[in-house]
Amino acid sequence: MIELVGFDADDTLWRSQEYFDDAQAQFEAILARYIDIRDSRLVERLLDTERRNLKLFGYGAKGMTLSMLETAISLSAERISARDLHRIVELGKSVLQHPVQLLPGIREAVAAVAADFRIVLITKGDLFHQERKVEESGLADLFGRIEIVSEKDPPTYQRLFREFEVAADRFAMVGNSLRSDIEPVVRLGGHGVHMPYASTWALETEHGLESDHPRVRLVQGSADIPRALHDLAAAHIPAVGA
Amino acid sequence: MIELVGFDADDTLWRSQEYFDDAQAQFEAILARYIDIRDSRLVERLLDTERRNLKLFGYGAKGMTLSMLETAISLSAERISARDLHRIVELGKSVLQHPVQLLPGIREAVAAVAADFRIVLITKGDLFHQERKVEESGLADLFGRIEIVSEKDPPTYQRLFREFEVAADRFAMVGNSLRSDIEPVVRLGGHGVHMPYASTWALETEHGLESDHPRVRLVQGSADIPRALHDLAAAHIPAVGA
Repeated sequence: MIELVGFDADDTLWRSQEYFDDAQAQFEAILARYIDIRDSRLVERLLDTERRNLKLFGYGAKGMTLSMLETAISLSAERISARDLHRIVELGKSVLQHPVQLLPGIREAVAAVAADFRIVLITKGDLFHQERKVEESGLADLFGRIEIVSEKDPPTYQRLFREFEVAADRFAMVGNSLRSDIEPVVRLGGHGVHMPYASTWALETEHGLESDHPRVRLVQGSADIPRALHDLAAAHIPAVGA
Repeated sequence: MIELVGFDADDTLWRSQEYFDDAQAQFEAILARYIDIRDSRLVERLLDTERRNLKLFGYGAKGMTLSMLETAISLSAERISARDLHRIVELGKSVLQHPVQLLPGIREAVAAVAADFRIVLITKGDLFHQERKVEESGLADLFGRIEIVSEKDPPTYQRLFREFEVAADRFAMVGNSLRSDIEPVVRLGGHGVHMPYASTWALETEHGLESDHPRVRLVQGSADIPRALHDLAAAHIPAVGA
């Protein structure tokens, strides 16, 4: 018994993480002119800075850019040139400007799900950037509602369930992140369809969900999403009188 | 006949622009060590950069910080030190961390309006920063709904009117910005209560609204908001049979 299906956006509907990964690779190449990036543990230091700044910046490319700048200045002991810092600003702008590339078959999969369930889009991150991507994706018309939130945690999903007027056990979330899309929904009593993406941001890999949770289905591609939802819906019909 | 009243947040419920102004003054002091800030037309150049970046960054302190960094690097001909660029990053962080200071009497004014009308909060800018300020303000409980939008233009207000299920002529917006709070609402047929703030961002001063529009009231402080709304409501009761 599933009434409402939520879809994540980045790395579920369209490509995203690879643009961040690409920016990070170029960031490392810039820093390599100043420091030994392995000895300096550049990747870990950037992640520490991003994690610390999350509570001030939230998610998204602008915050990532500011964290890269801070990390570069600190690790280079303030030796990095203004020209190279400008290159880092440009890396952030390139992430914000990347074209929206839909994942294979996702439009057909979303349309098939929409034929059987109410659907909503639930994405986190930078409001302005996410709105632009939703618009450019051409998928906005398929969704009854689009929610851009600052964090995908249990309180946020609880608020959304109230606004959607849906019980948690009648809701399923489709997404690539166990941490943000699947675990909080399942903890609240809902369902999850996990579609892993080729690359996952390190901070998104932290979760505590068992891999064989009965209210979670793993799919390898868009085409398998509708079947997984019907399977979850059929498996969890409440017993008569329960 | 007014059913629903929208309140702007920054510089209407709480102080905001002065933190941005303060950051800009410190930014100018940093740049003054590299350039003649008057000859270089620093203020105008920063505004040009912000305006150009708006379509990529949207509103808010993170975008402002990145625009400041770009302007500083460009105007200093890449001579600015990493240490000074770090200071500029810190200016942006200080804006994001400023405490929420309510304007005098605003809680009482909002409560008085809420006793007679449905009220919503409509604010634009950085999702994460705005959410934090709403929470810290202690005013969230007074509002039936909180909308954080990326732009306050006629299409956005039209979308909100549909979501609120209110006709434009039954809606009034209270805010400090003629450009973002008053003009678009009035253009759609709604009402406006304009409460100017001591300081206005240059990009917010651009508008085309006549100063004596019949569906707009000017107030000098929070205490006058309820009366202005009742005055607007009474002045615009549709004629019988109209």
